[in-house]
Amino acid sequence: MTRFTYFLVAIGAMAGLVTLSAPAPGHADDQPAAPFVTEIPHGYRDWQWISSAHEAGNLNSLGAVLGNDVAINAFRKGTLPFPDGAIIAALHYRHVPSDENNKVFGQAQSFVPGPPTNIQFMVKDSTKYAATGGWGFGHFGTDGKPGDAAFMKSCFPCHEKAKVTDLVFTRYAR
Amino acid sequence: MTRFTYFLVAIGAMAGLVTLSAPAPGHADDQPAAPFVTEIPHGYRDWQWISSAHEAGNLNSLGAVLGNDVAINAFRKGTLPFPDGAIIAALHYRHVPSDENNKVFGQAQSFVPGPPTNIQFMVKDSTKYAATGGWGFGHFGTDGKPGDAAFMKSCFPCHEKAKVTDLVFTRYAR
Repeated sequence: MTRFTYFLVAIGAMAGLVTLSAPAPGHADDQPAAPFVTEIPHGYRDWQWISSAHEAGNLNSLGAVLGNDVAINAFRKGTLPFPDGAIIAALHYRHVPSDENNKVFGQAQSFVPGPPTNIQFMVKDSTKYAATGGWGFGHFGTDGKPGDAAFMKSCFPCHEKAKVTDLVFTRYAR
Repeated sequence: MTRFTYFLVAIGAMAGLVTLSAPAPGHADDQPAAPFVTEIPHGYRDWQWISSAHEAGNLNSLGAVLGNDVAINAFRKGTLPFPDGAIIAALHYRHVPSDENNKVFGQAQSFVPGPPTNIQFMVKDSTKYAATGGWGFGHFGTDGKPGDAAFMKSCFPCHEKAKVTDLVFTRYAR
């Protein structure tokens, strides 16, 4: 497998973090495509920490979920649905052993974020993204390019399963 | 095993995140004990995200490392040693499966932070903590109480092994 193929496979696998299952049927082809997030929100790396996430198996991912001020306030107060302006960012990395830490531990037990795989966003705008539950979904590979329209169609049907928490799977770690 | 015993075992296990190995001999008993951090630094939950960490095995921990502005700036610029005023916080939780996510995935692969176990700090003050490499170490159980002096003696001998990065094991996730 070439490095490039491997990269595409990795990105594809990580996409499961949004889809969480095989893509469900989207809109019929004669309907306009629902909009999705096409630009990386500014300053997301400075946002506060909501939680960490480890996905074993094929995803093999270790990452963090961060939120802008609107999202963080809503998480802390338990505000549902999330207000317009809330943005949630999921930063994904390969889940790799830390040789350095394991040497000190004397055994293989320490795992850290390895190479980044993708960044995903949920942007709340109940008008712009009315067709997808008020959330705009975003997925950006390490090249900074957004997922294409066909791919992005798979986000909403899966997140819809978390209706009771306004389509958000992540819980705030206290 | 009673719940309380279990709690103590969990705290003891998590302590390994600081010690990373069996406690090495500390100072001779006729020397004054090195100071350590006895109060939880204010506002740490609002700090920015440095990285996530998964410790398998007995520790069974999933958490996040956060930093105050001084620490974050140093991490981003690669400033070594860390300047006085830098504080690094490690928030530790049990590494537990997310039944909710796994139901959507259709398989057991999703792990999230469970109950908190402890919070650990490294506070840079090259005068106050000169005896321990310029860092004050802190460990607080879920009751908010600091580790005792005997316990805290084990932090520095282990962190000293990361001398090349000023006693800090965690890398900034980009």
